[in-house]
Amino acid sequence: MANTNAPIPSSNMNWRDLVAHKQRECREKIPSEWILDEKLLAQVPRRLLEYDLPRRSGLLSETELDLTEKYTASQLLPKLASGQVSSLAVTTAFCKRTAIAQQVTSCLTETFFPQALERAQFLDEYLRREGQPLGPLHGLPISLKDSFCIQDTQATVGYVSFLKHVPAMSDSALVSMLLKLGAVLYVKTNIPQTMMTGDSDNNIFGRTLNPHNTSLTAGGSSGGEGALVAFRGSILGVGTDVAGSIRIPALCCGVYGFKPTVDRIPFGGQVSGVMKGMPGIKPSAGPLAHSIADLQLLMQNVIGDGNAWEFDCTAVGAPWKQYLHQNGQNGSLNIGVLAEDQHFPLHPPIKRALNLAIERLARAGHRIVRLENPSNEYLSVAYASRLAFQYFTYGPHEDHIGASGEPLVNSVAKFAAPMFSGPWPVEQGLEPFQTIQALHVARQLVSDEWRRVWIEQKLDVILAPGAQNTAVAYDTFGWPPYTVLWNLLDYPACIIPFGKASKELDPEEIKTGDEVQPDYHPDEVDGAPCAVQVVAPRFQDERCLWAAEIIDRAIQESR
Amino acid sequence: MANTNAPIPSSNMNWRDLVAHKQRECREKIPSEWILDEKLLAQVPRRLLEYDLPRRSGLLSETELDLTEKYTASQLLPKLASGQVSSLAVTTAFCKRTAIAQQVTSCLTETFFPQALERAQFLDEYLRREGQPLGPLHGLPISLKDSFCIQDTQATVGYVSFLKHVPAMSDSALVSMLLKLGAVLYVKTNIPQTMMTGDSDNNIFGRTLNPHNTSLTAGGSSGGEGALVAFRGSILGVGTDVAGSIRIPALCCGVYGFKPTVDRIPFGGQVSGVMKGMPGIKPSAGPLAHSIADLQLLMQNVIGDGNAWEFDCTAVGAPWKQYLHQNGQNGSLNIGVLAEDQHFPLHPPIKRALNLAIERLARAGHRIVRLENPSNEYLSVAYASRLAFQYFTYGPHEDHIGASGEPLVNSVAKFAAPMFSGPWPVEQGLEPFQTIQALHVARQLVSDEWRRVWIEQKLDVILAPGAQNTAVAYDTFGWPPYTVLWNLLDYPACIIPFGKASKELDPEEIKTGDEVQPDYHPDEVDGAPCAVQVVAPRFQDERCLWAAEIIDRAIQESR
Repeated sequence: MANTNAPIPSSNMNWRDLVAHKQRECREKIPSEWILDEKLLAQVPRRLLEYDLPRRSGLLSETELDLTEKYTASQLLPKLASGQVSSLAVTTAFCKRTAIAQQVTSCLTETFFPQALERAQFLDEYLRREGQPLGPLHGLPISLKDSFCIQDTQATVGYVSFLKHVPAMSDSALVSMLLKLGAVLYVKTNIPQTMMTGDSDNNIFGRTLNPHNTSLTAGGSSGGEGALVAFRGSILGVGTDVAGSIRIPALCCGVYGFKPTVDRIPFGGQVSGVMKGMPGIKPSAGPLAHSIADLQLLMQNVIGDGNAWEFDCTAVGAPWKQYLHQNGQNGSLNIGVLAEDQHFPLHPPIKRALNLAIERLARAGHRIVRLENPSNEYLSVAYASRLAFQYFTYGPHEDHIGASGEPLVNSVAKFAAPMFSGPWPVEQGLEPFQTIQALHVARQLVSDEWRRVWIEQKLDVILAPGAQNTAVAYDTFGWPPYTVLWNLLDYPACIIPFGKASKELDPEEIKTGDEVQPDYHPDEVDGAPCAVQVVAPRFQDERCLWAAEIIDRAIQESR
Repeated sequence: MANTNAPIPSSNMNWRDLVAHKQRECREKIPSEWILDEKLLAQVPRRLLEYDLPRRSGLLSETELDLTEKYTASQLLPKLASGQVSSLAVTTAFCKRTAIAQQVTSCLTETFFPQALERAQFLDEYLRREGQPLGPLHGLPISLKDSFCIQDTQATVGYVSFLKHVPAMSDSALVSMLLKLGAVLYVKTNIPQTMMTGDSDNNIFGRTLNPHNTSLTAGGSSGGEGALVAFRGSILGVGTDVAGSIRIPALCCGVYGFKPTVDRIPFGGQVSGVMKGMPGIKPSAGPLAHSIADLQLLMQNVIGDGNAWEFDCTAVGAPWKQYLHQNGQNGSLNIGVLAEDQHFPLHPPIKRALNLAIERLARAGHRIVRLENPSNEYLSVAYASRLAFQYFTYGPHEDHIGASGEPLVNSVAKFAAPMFSGPWPVEQGLEPFQTIQALHVARQLVSDEWRRVWIEQKLDVILAPGAQNTAVAYDTFGWPPYTVLWNLLDYPACIIPFGKASKELDPEEIKTGDEVQPDYHPDEVDGAPCAVQVVAPRFQDERCLWAAEIIDRAIQESR
């Protein structure tokens, strides 16, 4: 990508000046003709998606509205590959729509629209000249979470102190691969300070709002992706997930999201604020999109024959296999249903969505296996939460916040912890190496217990809530028990948007009573997307998405 | 497996009594009719294999000699599956031959001949009754390194203190899988105290001798496997390798050995003396055998469709893929040749074998890419050695030796270290977490540099020595620079036996001059097997064995 030519801010600027400089720079990169009229902006209601701002703005032509609204990535790619639509037209449409999204949801960090349009033109010329596409993702715009490095672009991940870093000198492994596959990169998306909360809010790029209802969080840490994909400013985005950071924005924003097994999608070359090489739960990169087919599209093309090692020495070099397994008769699935944990009760809309999904799946002929609330503690959501929390908090942490003097944002300051649900799994105050060993042993026990459940119950997949709640008011998302369990196990997990919260159907307020997890306020979340989560064992990513597609078809019958 | 009914030794026995008790128990498990005549034993020369003790012993029938000598596992399996030979006949033959091997090489730890014969009979009956084999390894005897757990059998891994442990209460994951695949388990094999030296010597089971020449080491840590397979007391064995522990016995004993990428063969449920969960170099389980096809046989059947996770939550659930890639014209390979490291000079027989292999490969039409001695330190064998050594020695270690009062064996006491070759890669005395981070960063640098070399040179595989030396005199093997490099990188690596040391062809003594690595003594090692090593990138196990088979065929032309 081209050099942005931005001067490196002086190292003795205070944090507010650094931020002001960056914000001005970001604003100036949005072409003035894509800036919305202030009067229009003043009218925009909270329920952004219903309002249909892209059409009202008059910035997009009918064709551009169609290109951004009427297709999935899988549907658009054949048109791009055949030249039926140009990458320039598609990229222009998504750039415009993204510029609009940014002005009402603060979903972006870095933009590089001119470079994207140039790349699109190059690809169009390539297709004309060569008579064939550059690769299987030819001409498709893809958005990326801010943590990915794109040469000559900053990756500050919301730390003011990182504004002093020079722009990336090389691409992350996945960026190189996406470019080789023919994609067009045009924006990076917003995240929380620390990348460890359910609110994508930081002192540089502000707070990402949920386009379903801007008074709700868009989720985190890939919240910018969630909001942008929901707004259809992106047809396919890539986030990362160490506790739920792909799945929480997906479920908050009503889009599909997939957390693969660690290192199946090359993770190398990203910016992070955590210490390297610490034993524990590793983050995973994965897609957010508008269909299961589009999640598969990204997985299949990036993993391919298992040659990701050529780009990233940390990638697992196993091929993506077509999952054709037919279990039982008539392709029916054995679906385990995760039990609700008493410490983390489900809000009524989530329970309703899950029960409706189960009802429809049973009706479609799938076998439902209710997993009992475990007598074995190692199988409990609460124990896994506490073990994960202990992994996230043991050992030293570098203070990238103190380094600039910026304050903590609210969601970080609140520091949601699951420790109200029980004791620390591992004794505190042990020597570092003893702590590492004890955490490891505990994690292995949990993993082995889940393996047994899977085998004994002959499960194909597990159906689970993605969270206790839908998107909630700012800075109240709390701890993510129902996503982090699968990070602890390194199990692939897919969010399927399903249904909406309704104050008519679920009118009663519910208090969780623990002062960490969000209460249910029917008025506040009315209309917010609900979701279910589909989970498969470690490395069974193919099976997870295969089953998710079957489940998606079965439950969305009334669409 | 049946309970051995051995009483647990009293906890207040001293270490010598514990050992004497165990040794008596082990001796008594060898049927008296398989005990060799003392006069015969007294005549046995150092060059055991040449002497052909199994034939001279008169214990094996002609058929039994044939069954143990004339087939690879891949050749024997169809006969077992069709009932052309019975598992009882095959198992009896290998049990007898193994009993002989034990009496002249001390290659065993635990034996369970009666259970093995019972299992063989069960399998024979199964085949008669069902008209089909139990699994793809139906009726095949397989030997295992002592670290694997077999229910009701001890796994002491050479620590006297572990003699007080109760027998295993369950099988290691691989043991369960092998049984499910139809294999017969009959013995476990000897290892060094600590499992970290090139001499399989401990105070319980004694020293394993090299059947090519009993005055030489059999290698370690899977030295019992190396000796037993070379003696043809085993047709297929499984060892483990964290620095060379499969490949060193293979090259010392003149058999094929393969160290896969970590966790492709399920490693779970083994006994080990090291702390769990410590970040660093992880051991890998893999086969020793008489052909590349037999190495593939084990890999393919254990990994299969990638369902090892059903047995072991730590296993990588990627399928074994048929590697059909034809690179370049006429299936010719791009073969990088690892440069000799000045700190670890090759002994003349090893250099001669490697050069002959290169000559024959070039003649067969393969492209040879000489990898220069790197100016980049991260690519040097010596740096990788030091980094690996630092990984093996940082942090606390549990003292399982002091726990019983047993003395160190010589090879452990000598503590061969590569630090004469340069400084510690990571500053010593850092805090634990800083050490972990610094080691991780250094390892990633090495991995990334090797990835670049691979891509830039368009390599299919690397051809390298497996060690500086052949099998050498007891307790002089030293540090294993040419195997541990690939553990640091987690690259699959295969030993191909090739040629022999010859005092006629290489008559000059060579001193390494570092007081750690062995000198070359032409008389001492005359006739010892030589070998080459074939290496592929992480997770490219299929490619590694595919290329190793091509290379094996090309270089063994004069057989």
